[in-house]
Amino acid sequence: MIETHDAFAPSTAALVEVERACAASAVSWATLRSLPRLRRAELLRAIAAAIREDGDTILPLAAEETRLPLRRLSAELERTAAQAELFAAVVSEGSYLEAAIDHRRDGLPELRRMQVPLGPVAVFAAGNFPLAFSVMGGDTASALAAGCSVVIKTHPDHPRTSRAVLASVHRALRSTGIPSSVVAAVSDPSAGAALVADPRIAAGGFTGSLAGGRSLFDIAARRRHPIPFFAEMSSINPVIVAPKAARNDPEGIGGLLADAILGSAGQLCTKPGVLLVPEDAHELVDVMRRRLEIADAQPMLSPGIASRFADRLASWQSERVRPLTSGMVDSNWAATATLAETTLSDLDGPVLEEAFGPAAVIARYADLKSVPPVLERMGGQLTTTFHLDREEIEEVRPLLAVAEVMSGRVLVGGVPTGVRVGWAMTHGGPYPATTAPSSTSVGAAAIGRWLRPVTWQDAPQELLPDELRDAPRHPLPRRVDGRLIA
Amino acid sequence: MIETHDAFAPSTAALVEVERACAASAVSWATLRSLPRLRRAELLRAIAAAIREDGDTILPLAAEETRLPLRRLSAELERTAAQAELFAAVVSEGSYLEAAIDHRRDGLPELRRMQVPLGPVAVFAAGNFPLAFSVMGGDTASALAAGCSVVIKTHPDHPRTSRAVLASVHRALRSTGIPSSVVAAVSDPSAGAALVADPRIAAGGFTGSLAGGRSLFDIAARRRHPIPFFAEMSSINPVIVAPKAARNDPEGIGGLLADAILGSAGQLCTKPGVLLVPEDAHELVDVMRRRLEIADAQPMLSPGIASRFADRLASWQSERVRPLTSGMVDSNWAATATLAETTLSDLDGPVLEEAFGPAAVIARYADLKSVPPVLERMGGQLTTTFHLDREEIEEVRPLLAVAEVMSGRVLVGGVPTGVRVGWAMTHGGPYPATTAPSSTSVGAAAIGRWLRPVTWQDAPQELLPDELRDAPRHPLPRRVDGRLIA
Repeated sequence: MIETHDAFAPSTAALVEVERACAASAVSWATLRSLPRLRRAELLRAIAAAIREDGDTILPLAAEETRLPLRRLSAELERTAAQAELFAAVVSEGSYLEAAIDHRRDGLPELRRMQVPLGPVAVFAAGNFPLAFSVMGGDTASALAAGCSVVIKTHPDHPRTSRAVLASVHRALRSTGIPSSVVAAVSDPSAGAALVADPRIAAGGFTGSLAGGRSLFDIAARRRHPIPFFAEMSSINPVIVAPKAARNDPEGIGGLLADAILGSAGQLCTKPGVLLVPEDAHELVDVMRRRLEIADAQPMLSPGIASRFADRLASWQSERVRPLTSGMVDSNWAATATLAETTLSDLDGPVLEEAFGPAAVIARYADLKSVPPVLERMGGQLTTTFHLDREEIEEVRPLLAVAEVMSGRVLVGGVPTGVRVGWAMTHGGPYPATTAPSSTSVGAAAIGRWLRPVTWQDAPQELLPDELRDAPRHPLPRRVDGRLIA
Repeated sequence: MIETHDAFAPSTAALVEVERACAASAVSWATLRSLPRLRRAELLRAIAAAIREDGDTILPLAAEETRLPLRRLSAELERTAAQAELFAAVVSEGSYLEAAIDHRRDGLPELRRMQVPLGPVAVFAAGNFPLAFSVMGGDTASALAAGCSVVIKTHPDHPRTSRAVLASVHRALRSTGIPSSVVAAVSDPSAGAALVADPRIAAGGFTGSLAGGRSLFDIAARRRHPIPFFAEMSSINPVIVAPKAARNDPEGIGGLLADAILGSAGQLCTKPGVLLVPEDAHELVDVMRRRLEIADAQPMLSPGIASRFADRLASWQSERVRPLTSGMVDSNWAATATLAETTLSDLDGPVLEEAFGPAAVIARYADLKSVPPVLERMGGQLTTTFHLDREEIEEVRPLLAVAEVMSGRVLVGGVPTGVRVGWAMTHGGPYPATTAPSSTSVGAAAIGRWLRPVTWQDAPQELLPDELRDAPRHPLPRRVDGRLIA
């Protein structure tokens, strides 16, 4: 995903805004973290309800500001609400606290451990998901679930949508009696760097470009007191089609891949960007080429994204990259799809950098055995996808082993777009997919980014959090003397 | 804990050593990560047995090189072995994999997630625990448990102990048929920086000084592909004695604290360094003062540590810090204990930096209400300890709330030294205690530092790891469609 949080010297307006938001966030965090966890679950459900209620206000604004189709935005709004509800379920269930009790034994002290919130979190909204990765996106929902207050750097491309969603969130906060500054926002284009540098901010979450994410990560790491910074940045999402699969179902696979390249005008972090197909996969390539060639031009999110996409396509121009379609970006920043072809050995340099728009590069392999080093060269990925026939399992196995080392999600069949928000999702991966390989920004485990463990040693019951007492009011899975009790 | 991994430009010898170790580690990691997890548990138990068997060789070397008492080293050796066995239990039990399955539903794909090893890990040994935080210390044990190969930067103060332990580890590796380069070592004083910068290294673990840990963290963060770096660095471990507790048991509490300041010549990362006591706690202070005054001089670990300790004490010299004992470091780098006193408002600057040796600073408070801002000023801590009477619970509660935000472990009674290695331990805390507040370097959860999640989407059973199949050969707790099944 791409956006533009510039790491320029902040303006005075930005400094004032950041100071105000962080001061309020630090105060409201103290309230939030002292609430019982079921209150936070209730809050998340109230937010989900408020967003659904306000859909008629929010959706037209989002459509106007992003030029994304209403149908897609409507599904995204539902996903945003469902995501808040998933985190409500995560909080209620309680496993995320990793509660553990080691009773006294052999003269050793009693230990009781659980996760606590890190502190106020800075969240950077993405441009391509004005709802699901913006003001009340997954970062905000998971941070609130963890018990962290949030300061959002809103995205410059959808300011009115951001304000409308923030209003819904604040209404829900008021209805549950929680200070509305638990979710604060800053919007000055130069506020991002100052926000990450603010000593009251304890962690950061970001979805956007490699350049933007890395520059904020660097600020977080260079602070006097460094903080964790979780940036989801850049992925080319390789797809490998095995020989028999390509022969058996060129129409099906080609159609699926073409649709995934076209969806949301290719402005998805999981868009398949590099396709490795067998040498003789003429029909598969032809299906994709035709499908992409006839597709209408689609409006892109913003002139900035459109122009960066055009620049990326221009960087592919070389003797070694052959265009298969006549894709382009027009003056109304709408794009038609680009499919290009290169050789396996030329698959390097600019064609291995994310092209954020409707474009993909094909390379043909003579033998599946030549694919693993190519996957390694591609670096960290959010996803790697395989299409194979059941008879090809053993030949593909070594490729899968490489994909597991390089990616956060490995698919067999289907396409990587359309990320399921569930308990078992991983939306992450080694650098440059993210700055934190151990984390996910989608799914239940995303809450873990905003937590840290504390152990209480020999503390009396009255001084322990409810979750660690002998008889918690709201039971949860705990590990007692090494044994997990669900 | 203190040691000296210099971030100087590496020598040629260091570069050769690092190249050799990292190349071997990358190759052997591929073997290690493909082993069933129960093989890794077996390996850890074999290592524990080998270390116990070789105690008679290892202990005299450690005693000679560190000047620590044999009794303490003998307990440390047992702890080192028991720690490897704890991780064997963690691996067998399997919860650490966070296995989760979301079955297909409403047209959504099937997701199966678990943790996989990050890759070869760089481990920096500490000087003050030649066994438990060195070659086969907690970082190495937890990394092997996770399935990561390890390259150790040995500590310059105990080279022969390091070689002896490495020999034991290699014997155990051979006996279980695992390549011995799974645990490799580098020892050149300038190898540390090159090791962290090596592109094959996927993460780092460190126990030592703030300066050393921060400089390596900076290298890790500035790489082209940044990696997580878990440094445990600096803590002053405040102790707060509430008024009634100080009145009721000055002998007991004073004796405990004095012993914790003296133990291992104060060269422990959890040594209590700042003691906040009530204004009228004359008897308590007197008990400590007398106990520390009569204690013999104890040999420190190395001339470097002794001289840095002496420098730290010198930095305390001001009108505002009053010595209560005549502690000093002698020409044989042995130290007698220092107890100094200052006021609550002067508790700042050098007296709030870790003094790695037998020294502590006392400050008296008129009212418990004045303590929270002082705790906040102290910054991130490994531990904060409270002594209180049962009647003082309500007055101490707000202090505990601050301690929970600032520390990895909160004790009620006792002393923070003597870290229990268990399932519920946290040995970590916000910066500068560590560079990664969400991690622990002691206890079962330490394995989490070396793992990252991967999700398999719609993969056939044959391509899934055993732990994610419908019927795993070695069952483990899993979350199925959101429900934890222990």
